Amino acid sequence: MSTPWLHRFAQRTQRVKSSAIRELLKLTQKPDVISFAGGLPAPEVFPTEQFKEACQRVLTDHGPEALQYGPTEGYAPLREMIAANTARYGILAQPENVLITSGSQQALDLIGKLLINRGDRVLLEAPTYLGALQAFTVYGADYVSVPIDQNGLRTDLLEDALRSGPKFMYVLPNFQNPGGVTLSEGRRHELLLLADKYGCPIIEDDPYGQLRFEGEHLPPLVVVDRENLRRDNGYTLGNVIYLSTFSKTLAPGLRLAWIVAPAEVIAKLIQLKQGADLQTATFNQMVAYEVAKDGFLDEHVKLIRQVYRERRDAMLKALAEFFPEDVTWTRPDGGLFLWVTLPQGMDSHDLFNAAIAENVAFVPGDSFYATDDEEARRHFRLNFSYSRPQLIREGIRRLSIAVRHQMQTLHYIPVAAD
Amino acid sequence: MSTPWLHRFAQRTQRVKSSAIRELLKLTQKPDVISFAGGLPAPEVFPTEQFKEACQRVLTDHGPEALQYGPTEGYAPLREMIAANTARYGILAQPENVLITSGSQQALDLIGKLLINRGDRVLLEAPTYLGALQAFTVYGADYVSVPIDQNGLRTDLLEDALRSGPKFMYVLPNFQNPGGVTLSEGRRHELLLLADKYGCPIIEDDPYGQLRFEGEHLPPLVVVDRENLRRDNGYTLGNVIYLSTFSKTLAPGLRLAWIVAPAEVIAKLIQLKQGADLQTATFNQMVAYEVAKDGFLDEHVKLIRQVYRERRDAMLKALAEFFPEDVTWTRPDGGLFLWVTLPQGMDSHDLFNAAIAENVAFVPGDSFYATDDEEARRHFRLNFSYSRPQLIREGIRRLSIAVRHQMQTLHYIPVAAD
Repeated sequence: MSTPWLHRFAQRTQRVKSSAIRELLKLTQKPDVISFAGGLPAPEVFPTEQFKEACQRVLTDHGPEALQYGPTEGYAPLREMIAANTARYGILAQPENVLITSGSQQALDLIGKLLINRGDRVLLEAPTYLGALQAFTVYGADYVSVPIDQNGLRTDLLEDALRSGPKFMYVLPNFQNPGGVTLSEGRRHELLLLADKYGCPIIEDDPYGQLRFEGEHLPPLVVVDRENLRRDNGYTLGNVIYLSTFSKTLAPGLRLAWIVAPAEVIAKLIQLKQGADLQTATFNQMVAYEVAKDGFLDEHVKLIRQVYRERRDAMLKALAEFFPEDVTWTRPDGGLFLWVTLPQGMDSHDLFNAAIAENVAFVPGDSFYATDDEEARRHFRLNFSYSRPQLIREGIRRLSIAVRHQMQTLHYIPVAAD
Repeated sequence: MSTPWLHRFAQRTQRVKSSAIRELLKLTQKPDVISFAGGLPAPEVFPTEQFKEACQRVLTDHGPEALQYGPTEGYAPLREMIAANTARYGILAQPENVLITSGSQQALDLIGKLLINRGDRVLLEAPTYLGALQAFTVYGADYVSVPIDQNGLRTDLLEDALRSGPKFMYVLPNFQNPGGVTLSEGRRHELLLLADKYGCPIIEDDPYGQLRFEGEHLPPLVVVDRENLRRDNGYTLGNVIYLSTFSKTLAPGLRLAWIVAPAEVIAKLIQLKQGADLQTATFNQMVAYEVAKDGFLDEHVKLIRQVYRERRDAMLKALAEFFPEDVTWTRPDGGLFLWVTLPQGMDSHDLFNAAIAENVAFVPGDSFYATDDEEARRHFRLNFSYSRPQLIREGIRRLSIAVRHQMQTLHYIPVAAD
């Protein structure tokens, strides 16, 4: 089967490791499994009819343009729309501050490619989004992690970590993946002051910011940055590179996201994107623009919030009803995920196996840690956006059986008469 | 405007250089310019009606799936179709040998990421596709170049280059970009024997293979490889990683291409793609599958061949009619490009400026060379797929004025009475 180069290939590419999470997620795809593992939006709220109409309009009115090569930086009207939408949050972005990417995952990859040299440190929340770890690790990043709590990144522990000289910080301030927590306003200011003090840029990843179910919208870091530093020039973006996406508000199957950054950073990212995939699909950009323009997106987001809120509530209610007392979880104000903590000594990988036996799945917590952390395996992530409320209730019921069974095995609680 | 990190950023990212070609191509976009610079397919042959119908069918029958996240490796029916189509050329590929990518540019990027460590040598044709240079250079590739002639890569010069230990070879065997030449069958065998002797894999980039206007289809390198090495196992792919795309047969605005490679190589590339963009847009894959299935693609390719042949002929005829004798060009049997050689001492950058003044554009030759080559600036690339025959004739007429003017300046030919 193997030619000499293939033999060498196998030896040399061992650093590209088969991701444990990838293998594990295969188990969650059995038909009877209720999966809280993925990060999938609710398919029931995809605006399919709007997409149908938009495809017809784009192909009828602009067919040759939509199917042709287009500029690497993105479809001009879409960049303008994103710049204008961003401006509503107080970020006075111009189109030259916006790069369209093939999903936020590509934004992370391009940022890694631009900023990371082998051995550079990246400062992360612990836990953090595992796709960011994948994107940065391939460029040889080392990590320094700062824990989160109910109010997001522990800014009281940040200065020590910054002294180690990270190249940048990667932060998910709203309804964090996987933690479900939101960075408080006070900490946003502390974070930005420290970023400026140490000259350390922040990658602000904000895929869920619009999906707030309750409480007040908090200013994005990119806005706090501008206010903190009293930048008078309305167009100045300083220490923050801001990422967002249509994946959670329109549809992930289009692969459309964007980066907002200082123009000189965008210029370099455009060159890297040209080498990475030339451009994001012209057709998709034009269709998304057709769907999103004229205020549809604002109305549609309201519907998503309502549906996700209902699902979050169903999950919180079921957790309270079925789970034993010693297990705790976060209570997100928005987004797609919540984060469960098991009692000391319990292991979410053992629980995962027991859960799969009960036909329910989640992602064990250690996938979300860059560095060894003995706490990591006590946690797991639950997604509440994908399943309907009734399935959520049934899934949590099944999961509680697995949890109790594991606890019994470890003598945490007495064996109950069934 | 600049915070301290932005200041450092500007200094540190100087290695991401503004591409000269990018700047230059901006000049070709003036409305009155007839551009032979881009590599754009003819928009007149995009199957817009088929796309309209396919979008409706996909969204009506599979809306939630089409708009949702999908597998990194690609939409299963599309992988199966590509494996089956590939099998027609004698490559017995299975779906596990196929990875869907976001255009061939992403295939090149992922291959660079997988195979190149800083300082590794890559063997290239001189000239070669400039997008490959962009993709590989970012991973720190060094280059060793072997010239092409009318029969493609000069295999008589290959062994010397292979002795320098390149990590892989990158070859465009059919209607090469930019040369327009095709690797002869005899050289294909020589190339594969040398690849096997030196244990050096080949990246076979074949975007135009189906666009042959005349002459016999030649076996792809991946097929010659299997035959040469008498691999009995029908599924074995040996020293060749094969790339192709829908960009030239359906539409580039979808960003859909694929890699055919040994399963263990595909497995590693899937992991890298997961970190790079998670997946190629589900919707696009399903729409392309709908359009391409049931034999439409075969019929459609016949139309493209006819249209491009007409345009190639128009360009060859105009070149013969208008250009001075000392200028030569290749005569491609297919594809999108031909390659012009100016007399010794002439410079295609000077000519470019003169051409833009005449409202006609091309790409100067040095963009296509990895290594310094004094020959590079004597050449330029002309695209014949994008413009209608009448415009081609007018563009070549204008270009001939610029050529004669440059020649006069350099005293190559006497000043003609106008």
